[in-house]
Amino acid sequence: MARNQNDPEIINSSLIWLKTQIDVMKENNNEVFLILTGMFIFLMQCGFAFLEAGSVQKKNTINILVKNILDSFIGSIAFWGFGYALAYGVPGNGFIGHHHFFSTYVDYFGEKFSLQDTTNSNATVLPISSNAYFANWFFQYVFAATAATIVSGAMAERAEFVCYIVYSFTITGFIYPVVAHWVWSPYGWLKSGVGTDLFMQDFAGSSVVHICGGVAALVGAKLVGPRLNRFSENGEIKPIPGHSVPLTALGAFILLVGFLCFNGGSVQRVSEKGDSAMVAMSVMNTILAGSAGGLVAMVTDRIYSEYKGKESYWSLLITINGALTGMVASCAGCNDIAPWAAIVIGSMGGLEFTFGKRLLIRFKIDDPLDAVPVHFGGGLTGTILTPIFALRGQNIDGKPVGGIIFGAHKKAFMGLGWNLIGCCGIILWTFVCSFTMFYTLQNIGLIRISQKIEKAGMDIKKHGQTAYPDHNSLQFVDEAANASQGNLERKPQKSNNMEMIDLPAYVNTTAWEDVTTSVPQQTSSSEKSHNNNLET
Amino acid sequence: MARNQNDPEIINSSLIWLKTQIDVMKENNNEVFLILTGMFIFLMQCGFAFLEAGSVQKKNTINILVKNILDSFIGSIAFWGFGYALAYGVPGNGFIGHHHFFSTYVDYFGEKFSLQDTTNSNATVLPISSNAYFANWFFQYVFAATAATIVSGAMAERAEFVCYIVYSFTITGFIYPVVAHWVWSPYGWLKSGVGTDLFMQDFAGSSVVHICGGVAALVGAKLVGPRLNRFSENGEIKPIPGHSVPLTALGAFILLVGFLCFNGGSVQRVSEKGDSAMVAMSVMNTILAGSAGGLVAMVTDRIYSEYKGKESYWSLLITINGALTGMVASCAGCNDIAPWAAIVIGSMGGLEFTFGKRLLIRFKIDDPLDAVPVHFGGGLTGTILTPIFALRGQNIDGKPVGGIIFGAHKKAFMGLGWNLIGCCGIILWTFVCSFTMFYTLQNIGLIRISQKIEKAGMDIKKHGQTAYPDHNSLQFVDEAANASQGNLERKPQKSNNMEMIDLPAYVNTTAWEDVTTSVPQQTSSSEKSHNNNLET
Amino acid sequence: MARNQNDPEIINSSLIWLKTQIDVMKENNNEVFLILTGMFIFLMQCGFAFLEAGSVQKKNTINILVKNILDSFIGSIAFWGFGYALAYGVPGNGFIGHHHFFSTYVDYFGEKFSLQDTTNSNATVLPISSNAYFANWFFQYVFAATAATIVSGAMAERAEFVCYIVYSFTITGFIYPVVAHWVWSPYGWLKSGVGTDLFMQDFAGSSVVHICGGVAALVGAKLVGPRLNRFSENGEIKPIPGHSVPLTALGAFILLVGFLCFNGGSVQRVSEKGDSAMVAMSVMNTILAGSAGGLVAMVTDRIYSEYKGKESYWSLLITINGALTGMVASCAGCNDIAPWAAIVIGSMGGLEFTFGKRLLIRFKIDDPLDAVPVHFGGGLTGTILTPIFALRGQNIDGKPVGGIIFGAHKKAFMGLGWNLIGCCGIILWTFVCSFTMFYTLQNIGLIRISQKIEKAGMDIKKHGQTAYPDHNSLQFVDEAANASQGNLERKPQKSNNMEMIDLPAYVNTTAWEDVTTSVPQQTSSSEKSHNNNLET
Repeated sequence: MARNQNDPEIINSSLIWLKTQIDVMKENNNEVFLILTGMFIFLMQCGFAFLEAGSVQKKNTINILVKNILDSFIGSIAFWGFGYALAYGVPGNGFIGHHHFFSTYVDYFGEKFSLQDTTNSNATVLPISSNAYFANWFFQYVFAATAATIVSGAMAERAEFVCYIVYSFTITGFIYPVVAHWVWSPYGWLKSGVGTDLFMQDFAGSSVVHICGGVAALVGAKLVGPRLNRFSENGEIKPIPGHSVPLTALGAFILLVGFLCFNGGSVQRVSEKGDSAMVAMSVMNTILAGSAGGLVAMVTDRIYSEYKGKESYWSLLITINGALTGMVASCAGCNDIAPWAAIVIGSMGGLEFTFGKRLLIRFKIDDPLDAVPVHFGGGLTGTILTPIFALRGQNIDGKPVGGIIFGAHKKAFMGLGWNLIGCCGIILWTFVCSFTMFYTLQNIGLIRISQKIEKAGMDIKKHGQTAYPDHNSLQFVDEAANASQGNLERKPQKSNNMEMIDLPAYVNTTAWEDVTTSVPQQTSSSEKSHNNNLET
Repeated sequence: MARNQNDPEIINSSLIWLKTQIDVMKENNNEVFLILTGMFIFLMQCGFAFLEAGSVQKKNTINILVKNILDSFIGSIAFWGFGYALAYGVPGNGFIGHHHFFSTYVDYFGEKFSLQDTTNSNATVLPISSNAYFANWFFQYVFAATAATIVSGAMAERAEFVCYIVYSFTITGFIYPVVAHWVWSPYGWLKSGVGTDLFMQDFAGSSVVHICGGVAALVGAKLVGPRLNRFSENGEIKPIPGHSVPLTALGAFILLVGFLCFNGGSVQRVSEKGDSAMVAMSVMNTILAGSAGGLVAMVTDRIYSEYKGKESYWSLLITINGALTGMVASCAGCNDIAPWAAIVIGSMGGLEFTFGKRLLIRFKIDDPLDAVPVHFGGGLTGTILTPIFALRGQNIDGKPVGGIIFGAHKKAFMGLGWNLIGCCGIILWTFVCSFTMFYTLQNIGLIRISQKIEKAGMDIKKHGQTAYPDHNSLQFVDEAANASQGNLERKPQKSNNMEMIDLPAYVNTTAWEDVTTSVPQQTSSSEKSHNNNLET
Repeated sequence: MARNQNDPEIINSSLIWLKTQIDVMKENNNEVFLILTGMFIFLMQCGFAFLEAGSVQKKNTINILVKNILDSFIGSIAFWGFGYALAYGVPGNGFIGHHHFFSTYVDYFGEKFSLQDTTNSNATVLPISSNAYFANWFFQYVFAATAATIVSGAMAERAEFVCYIVYSFTITGFIYPVVAHWVWSPYGWLKSGVGTDLFMQDFAGSSVVHICGGVAALVGAKLVGPRLNRFSENGEIKPIPGHSVPLTALGAFILLVGFLCFNGGSVQRVSEKGDSAMVAMSVMNTILAGSAGGLVAMVTDRIYSEYKGKESYWSLLITINGALTGMVASCAGCNDIAPWAAIVIGSMGGLEFTFGKRLLIRFKIDDPLDAVPVHFGGGLTGTILTPIFALRGQNIDGKPVGGIIFGAHKKAFMGLGWNLIGCCGIILWTFVCSFTMFYTLQNIGLIRISQKIEKAGMDIKKHGQTAYPDHNSLQFVDEAANASQGNLERKPQKSNNMEMIDLPAYVNTTAWEDVTTSVPQQTSSSEKSHNNNLET
């Protein structure tokens, strides 16, 4: 090109070369955007893990962490094997996709291996290019994993481990992908409008991810039943606070960042005019909706508690959950509302949380993480409000008509109706599937742990360990005993020391042994004061 | 274009099309860069939250976490409503911006809603395009939130909740934006040089963010007064260590990553030749400055302690704060210094921290997080040293003259002078504003909590919860009692159990009840040993 | 260009301008990609820090956190001064690079300072452009820091602080850079094939980072010896569980995200056709390999424990380490294997971990973090399996022949051989260097702390602090005493209060004092119950 000599052929090929380069760059930029925002969304697994770990009792901490880490692992296998194919396999029908199971018919490098697959293929299956497949797989996988994670919170502290593995696989591999297909695949019935000129307005998953996850959480929490002592027979409601507020707050902070990418990343393209502005607009709306939700929930919960004559506080956990609800509510329309509307929608989310949380308790459903009011309630709020506040909303002849409050066009009302139909469809599908699944698990006795294990906590019985092993007692007692004799060499004859050495691995022996056996009746004051000194 | 036929018209339009595509891509790339680095900077809110949470006493943990999470929420509302307009509203005067409050006059999609606004507008206000607004809003918002967060550390453990809400709103919505306008808006007086051919050299906010936040922190810490028992009447200084070093370290690790994006992201453009190299150079300089600051603080603190005849250690907290100070010092010039100069500047920051920290104590100002030596001291160090070590520095006829040590050009000395004038201006502005604010709060009795609450801790009184609720005692005692009777069913008649059930929600009853009422005089040895077993 | 008038000159210059713009954008995009993925990789320092902090005893928590934070700091200075030059200095020989120490001969802005350097330069040294240097330095630095971090886990809880500083500097500044030069610099002997037409297939560091780090960890753990009481004389093996599973899990979650960028980022270019697809493919393969490794380790460990007649659990720590091993194994070939092969390789990694871990214990090597089976074992697994499962593998005349199972081409077997030779070379080099280093440290008495300090823990003796200071006792006791007298003013005559005020700074006095001195024989029941209430 540097040797361009006005030859029309050279100019022509130069122009074509330039266009090719631009196309390549756009493709690369779009995929890098999916990958990097996907990283932050994947980090939400860490966020959910700690939101939940801090919110359970100390004795179930490891259990909930195992569940959350397995979410990612089981989810990736399930989404590779089944989920992606059902959600985004091309071509698909209005209900479901059915190609590219186990990464089949993917053209890895445009080389022999994909070719080999292609020759064997049904004529209607076209191999997906690596550009279309890999980045998209990762981005959609992290969304699917999020949907499954929601359930673990609602069923925390009493669900069987096997139950967990089954639903984690089923949600990421089947239930969620079908919903995603309906709303986000070009073949899906809620996307295409099946003859109507409507589409479901759910940009980043208020319904697809959060209603789906929230309904499964509700069904699971109902069928597994409340934790022991949560609701006593005399109607008393006993709160079971989590064991570590800092861990919960850590999870929340990570989720706040993750949500910005969850919503911003949903633009999925940063190559055409206005794309990045839409990403940034989504991010701004999400933080504003979250802020409003958190502040409104904090204040309304306090006021309502005062109104009910209870003690009222500035609650951190309420603020966190209100903010998450606001962000969930903003998912559906964050790319199509003004910042002030994001604040309104987020506030409605916060308000919903304050009362949704109480409603759930009234129905005696025990949801340790308040996953149902956050995700189901927040998702519903967002899916319903978006057609009202949308700046562009549905189209007529390709021109946006705006949401209901911007002109109250008939098409805008129809858009709201379509969103409601979509919500009903998603709720129905998720309810039927998850009820079938959990009911089966219940009937074969795999939904809930025994009372004995529930009381003792799952960490020791199921995972062989306590979350905060306190073996320091061994060394400290040992040294103190020696120190008082002016001798730092280890004395094997120390009886209180040797007792501990014989105990099984990884077990916080003091916590477990004393509880399951009869308690020691005699402890010297010297030993007691040592124990006191070893507190965190 | 594929059908190019040497027609000059076609070639012409092809060239124009290509240029348009390149412009679009540049715009998109710049905005995506702002958004993604902004995510890491937003993660710094999590970093500060845990740096502070670990550094306060256990009884104030929730309080500091609430404050930090509200920082983000109040900040986003304030920066949407006021902050952005005051800092970057166009056009503005030398002192302040005054357009685009509440996202007004923003052209969301180039469609009707912005048009409607435009027609109502004052002729001098031009609507900002969505490309110019949204990504920039998010990036500037995360900076503003950082400035506000600094203060919460210095005032931790004794500031009123209302005080906190007021200053958080005021700093993100007013005090900081004016400073940002001065130095970073093209209209600002420190940027434009008001007639001189000088500009303030503060690339990423040593003065704008850290001196501003640091001065507000200093004023706040002074007016709220030291924590109880921090400085006793006989001149004794009692350290009040934070309750969890791992939480502090977690915050620090997150802040280290955040700072790299804080400084690298400040290039704000990755579309023109050398842009990304400058980003990377800023990142490299920041990590080197932080490393040097941490190592120097660790060593000098140890040496100075030995020199003073005190016990000396390799202190983690000193190392962390030294590193943060080094990074703060590198903000001003990280894009314009050689790596060795970054090490020098970072080292000076570390040195400043070692002595700044002691100076503050000598003046009996209680700063639980050492926010003043880190941010004010580090910021001052960076703002002063940058004109000395700059590779390019000020310009003459568009050509850089270099910093003072590279030729000692007169213009370089003038640049140092301008930076000093800028520092004075920023210190004065922030001092006057924050003094007025905190003094008013003090006089209406809203700056500080009561002694009673301070002693008991804010978590229970203000937030209705302890950070580490220990309800396990309930279940464990219950089960142990039952187990010893060979019966795992719950026994409602257990008295020590029922007592706890009646207590209010979320309250760590053992910690609170026993302290505020007369202490129980009799505890069976069996119960005592259970309590001991339930330690973390 | 807008004024294009069919003049050939104008067309020509327009085409050149367009090409220049595209080149600039590609350069920028590549560097931004390195910087942003580098941020996530740098976050792995946080991940390793908490993986390790949770896995050590409470009394050594600060020590391991200091070590991890110094890793980053010492590493950045060492890699700036020496590491980069030895690894990537151009030109270099087959063994080592030897230019650009201390960022010399870097053309910062294409201005005077680089020019000055250039005129003094040896004719064979060409200044690196800022585009080639800075982003690459950062990306390579975060890799080097990872290699060094591996060692700290294996030597945790008993290595001298000085020992740590020495090996951290040596590994990032010398041992690792030489290995990186061999495999990843175009001058390196394993990359160039020294006459053969082979190259070592290690895309993201299974051998370069993980075998190197793992061998150094093995040598260090062997020479420093096991922790006290880990292996008793009668052959008994005593587990020493870490003090906080949530901290370990936090580290693991962060590492999972980090590894995706570690592998995806290793493409190092997102400007040409297929680049981003390869990044995404690497990310997908990494998460699948990690998932498979985690699940396989969880299940096989449980089955093997049952087979051995021991109690069996769903272990979180085994799952975490299995997943990390799977990801380590995927490093070598993640850009060149099918997703199913990633699952196979990850599973082999998980299997290796289950047995590698036991093998190490059989040899009585105490590796608190299981760093050797994770990094050395996983790295070896990946380096060996990649030439077998590679889709493209080695080339003949520029055409890929595929891995051994895709046709069993002779060249594929030779590729496996070359990878084995590479492994041997890397193991030998790292063994010789690290043995020399640790043996010297051992002989001058700087490898291991004294028994006294080991028993007491390093936090108080070396770092002047406990990880979880519990000063609350002071205020609570104080208040309770006053409250019972209806008086909230502080009473200086309270003796149990004043005792504590006199103690040195930051020291958790109750834990330390009582242990090292004779234990108090008398404690009132009131005081005891207070202490009990202050547990976490």
